[in-house]
Amino acid sequence: MLGRILTSLLPTITAKAHCDLPCGVYDPAQARIEAESVKAIIGKYDASDDDAFRQRCVIIKEQRSELVKHHLWVLWTDYFKPEHLERYPQLHDQFWKATKLAGAGGTKGSMDAEVAQQLLDKIEEIATIFRETKKA
Amino acid sequence: MLGRILTSLLPTITAKAHCDLPCGVYDPAQARIEAESVKAIIGKYDASDDDAFRQRCVIIKEQRSELVKHHLWVLWTDYFKPEHLERYPQLHDQFWKATKLAGAGGTKGSMDAEVAQQLLDKIEEIATIFRETKKA
Amino acid sequence: MLGRILTSLLPTITAKAHCDLPCGVYDPAQARIEAESVKAIIGKYDASDDDAFRQRCVIIKEQRSELVKHHLWVLWTDYFKPEHLERYPQLHDQFWKATKLAGAGGTKGSMDAEVAQQLLDKIEEIATIFRETKKA
Amino acid sequence: MLGRILTSLLPTITAKAHCDLPCGVYDPAQARIEAESVKAIIGKYDASDDDAFRQRCVIIKEQRSELVKHHLWVLWTDYFKPEHLERYPQLHDQFWKATKLAGAGGTKGSMDAEVAQQLLDKIEEIATIFRETKKA
Amino acid sequence: MLGRILTSLLPTITAKAHCDLPCGVYDPAQARIEAESVKAIIGKYDASDDDAFRQRCVIIKEQRSELVKHHLWVLWTDYFKPEHLERYPQLHDQFWKATKLAGAGGTKGSMDAEVAQQLLDKIEEIATIFRETKKA
Amino acid sequence: MLGRILTSLLPTITAKAHCDLPCGVYDPAQARIEAESVKAIIGKYDASDDDAFRQRCVIIKEQRSELVKHHLWVLWTDYFKPEHLERYPQLHDQFWKATKLAGAGGTKGSMDAEVAQQLLDKIEEIATIFRETKKA
Repeated sequence: MLGRILTSLLPTITAKAHCDLPCGVYDPAQARIEAESVKAIIGKYDASDDDAFRQRCVIIKEQRSELVKHHLWVLWTDYFKPEHLERYPQLHDQFWKATKLAGAGGTKGSMDAEVAQQLLDKIEEIATIFRETKKA
Repeated sequence: MLGRILTSLLPTITAKAHCDLPCGVYDPAQARIEAESVKAIIGKYDASDDDAFRQRCVIIKEQRSELVKHHLWVLWTDYFKPEHLERYPQLHDQFWKATKLAGAGGTKGSMDAEVAQQLLDKIEEIATIFRETKKA
Repeated sequence: MLGRILTSLLPTITAKAHCDLPCGVYDPAQARIEAESVKAIIGKYDASDDDAFRQRCVIIKEQRSELVKHHLWVLWTDYFKPEHLERYPQLHDQFWKATKLAGAGGTKGSMDAEVAQQLLDKIEEIATIFRETKKA
Repeated sequence: MLGRILTSLLPTITAKAHCDLPCGVYDPAQARIEAESVKAIIGKYDASDDDAFRQRCVIIKEQRSELVKHHLWVLWTDYFKPEHLERYPQLHDQFWKATKLAGAGGTKGSMDAEVAQQLLDKIEEIATIFRETKKA
Repeated sequence: MLGRILTSLLPTITAKAHCDLPCGVYDPAQARIEAESVKAIIGKYDASDDDAFRQRCVIIKEQRSELVKHHLWVLWTDYFKPEHLERYPQLHDQFWKATKLAGAGGTKGSMDAEVAQQLLDKIEEIATIFRETKKA
Repeated sequence: MLGRILTSLLPTITAKAHCDLPCGVYDPAQARIEAESVKAIIGKYDASDDDAFRQRCVIIKEQRSELVKHHLWVLWTDYFKPEHLERYPQLHDQFWKATKLAGAGGTKGSMDAEVAQQLLDKIEEIATIFRETKKA
């Protein structure tokens, strides 16, 4: 609480870079787009009974889930600063759970569209915080 | 003209996938985010006189420009369909010029922020067409 | 026709680089080698009834098809110049169709050797034009 | 200190999974090897006055720092479980700081061997916890 | 034995870098960790009867085997020097056989845990030589 | 035209596998094309006095040299069989020296066009053996 009040007195924070220069450009949309892809792939998998096509689904879901993890990790380490953590102490845990949701215990290991939706919801929670920090 | 009229009679086109499954998820934002990064890097390069930092700028600008090219190529080959080409016959040329703008004759080879802006403008032109095809 | 005549009056064109420096070294053989690999994989898939082996075929065919697309995109954007386009106005469309033939609607999504052959034929058409431009 | 002594009395440790299957094989040595490389590169950079060589140092330090980040992220998301977090509540913060130390504000952006040493120390802290969890 | 005695008479050899700078940091543990992962994946594959999970096993085993090959190749080309070859004339052949054991005729093409064990044994033979050269 | 006729008189060459399926398609041209690129880059570097351009040369030469190494390693491990080694006992050493010529002690670490030429010559030696084994 106090952290939140103190932070609101701080000068505007300018976002720093997904390229780790930092260039100053970050966007949770990168993780979201890949997660949407994961969810769509699961839908296509369910609708098909062609073996080779379903194997392609598994391959591509694996790659796209990995990209979700990567984009989230970059956002967590490179964009967020100590002052954000003070204001949003749950951030570490949210990123940890979100990346786990894109891993073996999440969309990599599952063909359940519900799991993909949970991942999308988690990313949206993070995106909401991200937008708040940009407005701050 | 006639092409445009004929196309408007066609049934709604559902976008197909950046993952090449196709999963059905495409977004020009992917190319735009990287291009914004390229432009920001150029600004940082100009503002610095630290050799190692400027070398990092060159390295990362190279990578980010390559990502712009990749995202645009995927959009061109995987998202756009013959009926889009009929309606937007300039598409091939726009993608060709946009990807060239992210190459040696564009942002890879240049430290001019104006070139990065031209790339962003070109991507916005493509994004406008993209949005129109989604509404169709 | 007129384009072809006009072009023949232009000075010799020196090829520019697949590395996007540009270094000056391009070769459609890179795309062709990967496409031959794709065709051979399909043959191996058809001849086998081992599940894990066939899954490896799907994985590797996916990767090799992606490499075909990449090498073609590079050639299209980095090697070919406006004067080539003037002389070969069909180039854009040929590359578009060739890369589509290595995608979901082509060798990525199909286990038909005929599709792989169509891809090889398309690459050969492009290679023919490439050789003509080098001789020019 | 006590942790270190206790560890030497425990039975052989079986590693757990870095491939996200999960395959059951994890090892902080992967991050440490890359971080040692980063530190060695800085030494080589300092000892040289050859421009091209120093540029290679910058390039490779960038890549190796990225690998440190990647290996740490994988360990954090894939290896550590809720019960570990309960026992080591500082884990999230340690990983966050360690990955930041391999980023723009750490070894990517710096040519100071001391920063590389701080990264190595942070990785050793994590490795100590890792070994304790394996013994548990 | 004799080799070991002879080696102790040679001048100290300083190891050169897996990053190809060279940075001076090499470790056969990199190949071993991936090979352990491969062996563990085979165990998981055998224990499961879930189609999608087994397909993930095939995908990841393919990637991890490739990493084994890569780490071994780097060690062979970048770490070992002519004086090592003189002392261990079997080195070339050991690396050749080890990398083949991680390829199509080895762990990539097989679901036999015994093959993965042979790969691990081969890596251990190389690691033993590696350690001897470091002590020299 | 004449070239095409002459080619049809040559004996059929069946390629062998670079994808490690093995798919049956191998070609030393892959390493050669990258090595030609390396040599061309050095020429461009020498001819320029623009700092950022020369840094791009260093970056891309690093990448292209790595690709040379990769393509040679694949050829060595995946294409060549024990019977080839029996007939060409120098193969191991040729590959070792060729890959070293593309590393820190070769084209990665040097801006000497002569070193790049030595690499090309070494690749041609290997290509000659390769062609002989295909005819066998």
